[in-house]
Amino acid sequence: MIGGGQGAFIGAVHRHAAALDGLYELVAGAFSSNPETSKASGQLLGLAADRVYGSYEELIAREKALPETERVQVLSIVTPNHLHFAPAKLALENGFHVILDKPMTFSLAEAKELQAVAAASNGHFCLTHTYTGYPMVKEARQLVASGELGTIRKAYVEYPQGWLSNFEEGSSDNKQAAWRTDPARSGVAGAMGDIGTHAFNLLEYVTGLSVTQLCADINTVVPGRKLDDDGAVLLRLAGGASGVLVATQVAAGEENNVRLRVYGDKGGLEWQQVDANTLQVKWLDRPTEIRRAGTGYVSSYARHNTRTPAGHPEGYLEAFANLYRNFALSLQAELGGKSASAEALDYPSIEEGVRGMAFIENVIASGRSDQKWTEFTV
Amino acid sequence: MIGGGQGAFIGAVHRHAAALDGLYELVAGAFSSNPETSKASGQLLGLAADRVYGSYEELIAREKALPETERVQVLSIVTPNHLHFAPAKLALENGFHVILDKPMTFSLAEAKELQAVAAASNGHFCLTHTYTGYPMVKEARQLVASGELGTIRKAYVEYPQGWLSNFEEGSSDNKQAAWRTDPARSGVAGAMGDIGTHAFNLLEYVTGLSVTQLCADINTVVPGRKLDDDGAVLLRLAGGASGVLVATQVAAGEENNVRLRVYGDKGGLEWQQVDANTLQVKWLDRPTEIRRAGTGYVSSYARHNTRTPAGHPEGYLEAFANLYRNFALSLQAELGGKSASAEALDYPSIEEGVRGMAFIENVIASGRSDQKWTEFTV
Amino acid sequence: MIGGGQGAFIGAVHRHAAALDGLYELVAGAFSSNPETSKASGQLLGLAADRVYGSYEELIAREKALPETERVQVLSIVTPNHLHFAPAKLALENGFHVILDKPMTFSLAEAKELQAVAAASNGHFCLTHTYTGYPMVKEARQLVASGELGTIRKAYVEYPQGWLSNFEEGSSDNKQAAWRTDPARSGVAGAMGDIGTHAFNLLEYVTGLSVTQLCADINTVVPGRKLDDDGAVLLRLAGGASGVLVATQVAAGEENNVRLRVYGDKGGLEWQQVDANTLQVKWLDRPTEIRRAGTGYVSSYARHNTRTPAGHPEGYLEAFANLYRNFALSLQAELGGKSASAEALDYPSIEEGVRGMAFIENVIASGRSDQKWTEFTV
Amino acid sequence: MIGGGQGAFIGAVHRHAAALDGLYELVAGAFSSNPETSKASGQLLGLAADRVYGSYEELIAREKALPETERVQVLSIVTPNHLHFAPAKLALENGFHVILDKPMTFSLAEAKELQAVAAASNGHFCLTHTYTGYPMVKEARQLVASGELGTIRKAYVEYPQGWLSNFEEGSSDNKQAAWRTDPARSGVAGAMGDIGTHAFNLLEYVTGLSVTQLCADINTVVPGRKLDDDGAVLLRLAGGASGVLVATQVAAGEENNVRLRVYGDKGGLEWQQVDANTLQVKWLDRPTEIRRAGTGYVSSYARHNTRTPAGHPEGYLEAFANLYRNFALSLQAELGGKSASAEALDYPSIEEGVRGMAFIENVIASGRSDQKWTEFTV
Repeated sequence: MIGGGQGAFIGAVHRHAAALDGLYELVAGAFSSNPETSKASGQLLGLAADRVYGSYEELIAREKALPETERVQVLSIVTPNHLHFAPAKLALENGFHVILDKPMTFSLAEAKELQAVAAASNGHFCLTHTYTGYPMVKEARQLVASGELGTIRKAYVEYPQGWLSNFEEGSSDNKQAAWRTDPARSGVAGAMGDIGTHAFNLLEYVTGLSVTQLCADINTVVPGRKLDDDGAVLLRLAGGASGVLVATQVAAGEENNVRLRVYGDKGGLEWQQVDANTLQVKWLDRPTEIRRAGTGYVSSYARHNTRTPAGHPEGYLEAFANLYRNFALSLQAELGGKSASAEALDYPSIEEGVRGMAFIENVIASGRSDQKWTEFTV
Repeated sequence: MIGGGQGAFIGAVHRHAAALDGLYELVAGAFSSNPETSKASGQLLGLAADRVYGSYEELIAREKALPETERVQVLSIVTPNHLHFAPAKLALENGFHVILDKPMTFSLAEAKELQAVAAASNGHFCLTHTYTGYPMVKEARQLVASGELGTIRKAYVEYPQGWLSNFEEGSSDNKQAAWRTDPARSGVAGAMGDIGTHAFNLLEYVTGLSVTQLCADINTVVPGRKLDDDGAVLLRLAGGASGVLVATQVAAGEENNVRLRVYGDKGGLEWQQVDANTLQVKWLDRPTEIRRAGTGYVSSYARHNTRTPAGHPEGYLEAFANLYRNFALSLQAELGGKSASAEALDYPSIEEGVRGMAFIENVIASGRSDQKWTEFTV
Repeated sequence: MIGGGQGAFIGAVHRHAAALDGLYELVAGAFSSNPETSKASGQLLGLAADRVYGSYEELIAREKALPETERVQVLSIVTPNHLHFAPAKLALENGFHVILDKPMTFSLAEAKELQAVAAASNGHFCLTHTYTGYPMVKEARQLVASGELGTIRKAYVEYPQGWLSNFEEGSSDNKQAAWRTDPARSGVAGAMGDIGTHAFNLLEYVTGLSVTQLCADINTVVPGRKLDDDGAVLLRLAGGASGVLVATQVAAGEENNVRLRVYGDKGGLEWQQVDANTLQVKWLDRPTEIRRAGTGYVSSYARHNTRTPAGHPEGYLEAFANLYRNFALSLQAELGGKSASAEALDYPSIEEGVRGMAFIENVIASGRSDQKWTEFTV
Repeated sequence: MIGGGQGAFIGAVHRHAAALDGLYELVAGAFSSNPETSKASGQLLGLAADRVYGSYEELIAREKALPETERVQVLSIVTPNHLHFAPAKLALENGFHVILDKPMTFSLAEAKELQAVAAASNGHFCLTHTYTGYPMVKEARQLVASGELGTIRKAYVEYPQGWLSNFEEGSSDNKQAAWRTDPARSGVAGAMGDIGTHAFNLLEYVTGLSVTQLCADINTVVPGRKLDDDGAVLLRLAGGASGVLVATQVAAGEENNVRLRVYGDKGGLEWQQVDANTLQVKWLDRPTEIRRAGTGYVSSYARHNTRTPAGHPEGYLEAFANLYRNFALSLQAELGGKSASAEALDYPSIEEGVRGMAFIENVIASGRSDQKWTEFTV
């Protein structure tokens, strides 16, 4: 693991996710750019002292020097955005597999370069777009793909949060707020990068349709903030569908209320993180169905990504763990000379990471433009 | 009543709404432009034959000729949009009070002319924007006005329906679809006029803020349809807030799923027609409150617009009836030489009707424009 | 109308319910045992002074003396329980039709006598068990009757309220609490009579099964109260099914949270007043269905009892109005020499009233008994 | 781990729960009474072959022979009920700590003997009553303990499932159904032991009140079944409160719909597994509160048992993991010579296990009795 030392939020999430299924063992880390912090974090996590490194360069160099059966196989990179590209590139170039937190890089240019590096390496790559790990999001994608909803016409996705309603970055103890609102660490976007990319990815993943044009209203609502904390985007999708994406961090009182609705000419679907194990399927002329995770009637993709019987809720950590698990199952299959199942291979790819970075740059450009529609370019 | 003959939908709703509180008696009508239909409808409704007229002109002329104590006092006009202006104008000019279905007229020009007529007459005017008759919408408005949510930053309103997912106007027996999708009867807008105006009115009513600029994506999704059946609109509001309005008639499987969310810097609110007796009030740092109609703690406005104890749900007809009831209470107070209460006077006015028509013309213009932001002009 | 003067709750509900569809006109009343109050109430309601009477005896005598076309046809009796029997009996004996609030009488003996009186008279009778007027309760009954759920095994019904959590009857201004907790006016039961009978009726109505045995835990929770304010009852039903009935008035924070669940060997159903326009239908091996009032796919019984399109909620007053409307449609059909439709005839009968009174006496007896199971006797 | 070989359900749940926080490492197991199955299971789980044993006796003997720093510290016993007592007793007698699945033993007599063994040993004990591991169940308990709800009057708990609606034990491939309906493996109770004990424990845990008397209706609904699959129980609690417990496995279409409601004289609470991260808190005279896991305002107990920020749902595995984590934290504290925090020590104890077994025996006895109330004896 690179990053994720004491006080980090997402590092712990990655560790829970990796641990849940017993398919990963945490054996080495460079947990902080501060060697002391890294060392202390590694100790707390029970690592051998000689596998805790002071930098990612050291980690990659020294692990590579170990015999193949002893060295780290997969590197999880959970640093802030500006520290994604360099370690991911070095890891891939040295043949390590990489699990990287989103958004993929600091800029689209980096993303495209990383894509090229990955293509030229033996390393595999997984981006942690958590929400597509939920079983009922898998079910939603399969439902659209099955054609049962007819031709897709509309897609609405929203991600309202309220935690940045105040100037949290002014407080010395809110590390999460500090880096996410800092252009030097977060990149060109704030809310659009942090949660807008999740919403964008969820919409493209479920509909199977690419955004082709967008028209964005991007705002910095809280005085003093350096990056956007709010936005709404009109979308045009391939094939003639259209949609709306909302992402805001100033919806006071909202938690992480991700919601997706998709409508075809025969029916629609609705999924919300707050009720993650349910997929509502709506029909023109018959009752809405409440499809539930863990039941016998869901698709193989939903079933594959579920651990408990219906009614025992699974949540965010399980969704996260599904990304880790599918990546591991795919690697194991490859190591064993077999093909991984389609279900195992269904984890977020580097291509999705590139599109996410393109979304960030296009949406911010549109927000600054007086032109109504901006072409979505990669 | 003018319009609302056999087969009409909204005429029956108006009659239920008028009847509920025993404050109106239906005594006369011109229920159809076809005198035979009008007569038959009047008979079914138990009216005296000599009070059923063949046209609105006849109704107004003959009722005015009756002694003041015998003649109709209030005229409900429930015709399609293209037949709103003329009878409303004639009624006001002749001193009748008018209750008019929305959108107010066929065009903004008509709306402004009607406003001038009303100002010059003794007649009072009420527009039936149903959703603002719900007690918990009243509560929402009072909550914003109280300042408890802080400065309003964001407002999201949506009205998804699915009933026009197919080319219903192609069927000879769908009168509702036929006139609503016909530019000659509906006006320049379809979905934006029929339901977009409701959403717009609800947002301005609750926030107390005027829309100042908008950027619209307006679509005709169903092939062959002559008017818009779908749209999404970015909004800028007076005072710096912003928002999104969605209205669509092609969200397959949706009923009349009106939903409003408003966020200030201290908290937010959420209301949905599907759970009309509940107002969710969200806070930055304490639990969400579920405020309920019929309880002891709600505002005088919510209480005034409720008939049953908490837990016995009130619905759409009661909300509609609240408009009728408040209009009647206001007229009664005036007749009695008293001032009506602020609660009774809180019904949709002709000014709201003019803004609704301005919304229609502005939003359609924006939809056709390559310019990003369109000024909201009246 | 008999009873329902100023300050009464249920009288106003009856008047709204009668008015909603324009099928009744309120023309006469004895609104209070106090002639002055009766007179004042009648005046407020806009009645002619000579049709406002000082007692029900006077009303019945004087109305009967009017020509048949002028006199009252239906009498609504909305007095406290101890004043149900005498006016209902006198009305039926004099050929008036009767709509009576529940529970039907003060005692089972009275109920059986009234049943005999009704059988011997030309008067028709309707008991206002409101909850069976909801369209989705009708749908539930039809669903069970269709056999789609298989053989019914379990039924759970509950009616929790919180409004009697304190000693409200100690306050001089809570008339509702005062008579409902007074054995002289309410009868042998408090909560079991007031809301337990509703729950019992709802369960028998939907399942189509009679309670055959019961085992009750009946409590008076609030110190000083003279009647039960809480109870839970184990039920055995005809055909081998079993169930649980809960009715309490001390569930602090609950409104009128009526809920019914019924399970057969193939599926189950759930209905709640708080979401009255929805019926959940659950299946062993496929997704739960959300059936909604106002849609095209519901049964003729649900459709008949709905006034608005799907998504425009109907509530308690509409459910109440359905009882009035069905009674009126049945009487109109008879007057017209036709048979009323099965849908119109589906309103609560005097037999249901007798069973309700039997429930009260049996459940209180069981509550006092050390014997586990009490036979349900009528 | 003892039990939990291939095909077992709860064994996998225990392994996920143990793994989630990285506080346990699975190093040894006797996964089946069939040594071959045990061996194969151990291999799949990646254990060293010499730590996979053919029986629990072998496991305990051989592990005890290892140096203290190498041997297993905690034994998870996840066998069917009839195989709980012997391995748990042997483990405790040999100084191993024990995590045991519920219900604790095959009979109350065994439970009391195990309690005595534990008291005399150095081993610590944790029973996996999962539902009390949910953060908002912790919150509920703290809320009652705080006195904010006033004196508790009513408690309703229910656990409806539908999975045994058919004669599943007749199918050769339903191992879960087979042993749970078999008196030789499950004990004297079916549904009451499998899920009734969960409901009972949840009620006593949250209210802090002991059941003192009960009156049960216990049924075997499905023909051919050997144990109860359905029951409803009237409860009397210490201090004068009363309640109802429902547990059924024949509610067709229900998943694992655990729900608890508790009412005091000032307010009430409601929790449901289907919305596990929410606790509804209801008040007599102010809005219901929606308290949410992961927020800043919840009690230290809820916070301690949460891993993710509000809005990222945690579920069943996290609740289960909380038991494992708290047990580990308590043992670590003791090993480190410190006192564990009150939050860490709050996991289900052997006393709760004994009460659970007493519930089973009392409720089955009451179900068979003609006497109304049965004293709850331990």
